[in-house]
Amino acid sequence: MHIDDIDTPALVLDLDVCERNIRKFQRLFDEYGIGFRPHIKTHKIPELARWQVDAGAVGITCQKLGEVEVMANAGLDNILLYYNIVGEPKLERLCRLSHECDLTVTADTPVVTDAMGAAAVKQGAVINVLAELNSFIDRTGVPSVAELVNLARHIDRTPGLNLRGMATYPTSRQSADRIAEAVQAFDQAGLNREIVSGGGTPTAFEAEVVEGLTEHRAGTYIFMDRQCIDRGVATEADCALQVLTTVVSNPVSHRAIIDGGTKTFSADGDMPRGIVLDFPGAEIYQTNEEHGYLDIGNCDPKPSIGDRIRVIPNHVCVTVNLHNQVYGCRGNEVERVWPVAARGLVQ
Amino acid sequence: MHIDDIDTPALVLDLDVCERNIRKFQRLFDEYGIGFRPHIKTHKIPELARWQVDAGAVGITCQKLGEVEVMANAGLDNILLYYNIVGEPKLERLCRLSHECDLTVTADTPVVTDAMGAAAVKQGAVINVLAELNSFIDRTGVPSVAELVNLARHIDRTPGLNLRGMATYPTSRQSADRIAEAVQAFDQAGLNREIVSGGGTPTAFEAEVVEGLTEHRAGTYIFMDRQCIDRGVATEADCALQVLTTVVSNPVSHRAIIDGGTKTFSADGDMPRGIVLDFPGAEIYQTNEEHGYLDIGNCDPKPSIGDRIRVIPNHVCVTVNLHNQVYGCRGNEVERVWPVAARGLVQ
Repeated sequence: MHIDDIDTPALVLDLDVCERNIRKFQRLFDEYGIGFRPHIKTHKIPELARWQVDAGAVGITCQKLGEVEVMANAGLDNILLYYNIVGEPKLERLCRLSHECDLTVTADTPVVTDAMGAAAVKQGAVINVLAELNSFIDRTGVPSVAELVNLARHIDRTPGLNLRGMATYPTSRQSADRIAEAVQAFDQAGLNREIVSGGGTPTAFEAEVVEGLTEHRAGTYIFMDRQCIDRGVATEADCALQVLTTVVSNPVSHRAIIDGGTKTFSADGDMPRGIVLDFPGAEIYQTNEEHGYLDIGNCDPKPSIGDRIRVIPNHVCVTVNLHNQVYGCRGNEVERVWPVAARGLVQ
Repeated sequence: MHIDDIDTPALVLDLDVCERNIRKFQRLFDEYGIGFRPHIKTHKIPELARWQVDAGAVGITCQKLGEVEVMANAGLDNILLYYNIVGEPKLERLCRLSHECDLTVTADTPVVTDAMGAAAVKQGAVINVLAELNSFIDRTGVPSVAELVNLARHIDRTPGLNLRGMATYPTSRQSADRIAEAVQAFDQAGLNREIVSGGGTPTAFEAEVVEGLTEHRAGTYIFMDRQCIDRGVATEADCALQVLTTVVSNPVSHRAIIDGGTKTFSADGDMPRGIVLDFPGAEIYQTNEEHGYLDIGNCDPKPSIGDRIRVIPNHVCVTVNLHNQVYGCRGNEVERVWPVAARGLVQ
């Protein structure tokens, strides 16, 4: 199948660029001497996770249980689930998965770990846990190193649980001191810290300065996107995934309408809605559900109805989650069509 | 199944409220004497489309061919596809569908209608077409009534096409004069205008003042959402669909984290991200992909880990499109679980 035979809107993945991104980040962490654990929430495709592991990753990261199930069913192993798991139905699934693969989960409070321990004992499972520390984005994670140590001690003595260390997000120069302090406190308390897990694509290049880190998680790096370009960690040439659209209307000379809107791109990120390739000067200034508004006033030559417009999305992770499949291309040939296997699995 | 047995995050639909919305809007248009043609892009569920038709709708509206295929396969008929259809693969599907059901499509330029006519002749089909007029949102549609008449004349003499009238979006007091002018111009030119199609949920209550309108399209009305409340056309009690979430983290006293983010709610609309029910004063001030940040500083009582939080989303149409199923509830009992059959069908 030729790339021109793909109907639009569709996600087109440049496999050469994708493979280069996988190799580049793996090499970076190999040089640092830090284990690399790619986050599959970006692509949600088992075969790409396999490529990442084959390139040298220590394992993979998932954000939701449904993602773990898809990846484990596809034969992936050594999985970090970076999320507080709450409620009986999920705890049952977590215990079942703990029998099936090498799985570690994060937690940030005894309320969560107590329920996890009780479920594990009941189901004869052992659940590996990392205590989660907040590092400056003020989301999940205990707010101080003292509380982290208390939580880790609590996990350590909870039947059914196996403390493996700590995790935080994101890691950067800013969080280095706090992590060093946490590592020291774990050692003083005699707590297991075989895994000290950090994360983030934009801050991956700072991972080396975070002492004590044993692992790093990154997701977006495999595809890159406009937000990564804006953060200075990618160029357009690094962006492996593009949204392929078609001009469907051109009612006045300065406006063209493409067949993708927020149900194709998502509404993440500031305007413009992604980077328009091939037509310099053209800019997506607005989107409705199925329409993208292209300002072509400063564009020469201007696109016409039927022309294909490739767009680098603002935030590739949420874009992929909107689609049923990804077309993997080598040059102009479609080499693979992958279902986005874990699409929509938010539970 | 009891509503408390639904794992989260999930979409919970109050069937009583939904049925009331369907009846209310149908009655409104019955009183106006204008045909009502609900837009299924909001729910994407054939059984709900059937409810709308059974309540008295003249037919349904779709935005993408994939939606038409799902609805036609489920036995729905009399479908308006409000979109310019461009490219050979889609034209083939359009012709096939034109044999299978009563289908009408919009178009805003001879470039589009010529290709459509050629495909129809080749496949022995007749495609019903409405000429599209721009009415103040500056998206698709020809910019003037004079151009609309030229386009309609062109459609009228194109083999394979059957001109049925005109369409525009949105219709309101503001667009009433332009539509009246277009209707008059069609009559003077002797052009068929059996369908004059307007649309919009917020402006539905103004449809009566738009003279010449034979049909009105509305989608969001079936569920309503925060944007409709902000526009003054719905109350919280009219919002039939809620996102059911769980508090999974509570790292500090003023912040709780729920298990839904932009992959559950979408990023449409301004902050806060929807309306939090049950906990007055609580507000979602930020979302990542799988996390919602809840400010509970002014909340009394405050939610705890494990508590369920119901949220009215900002824009319900894009929210539904993110989910695999909707739980239809009567009171606290789950009466139906519907797959979102046309989810993700952007082609």
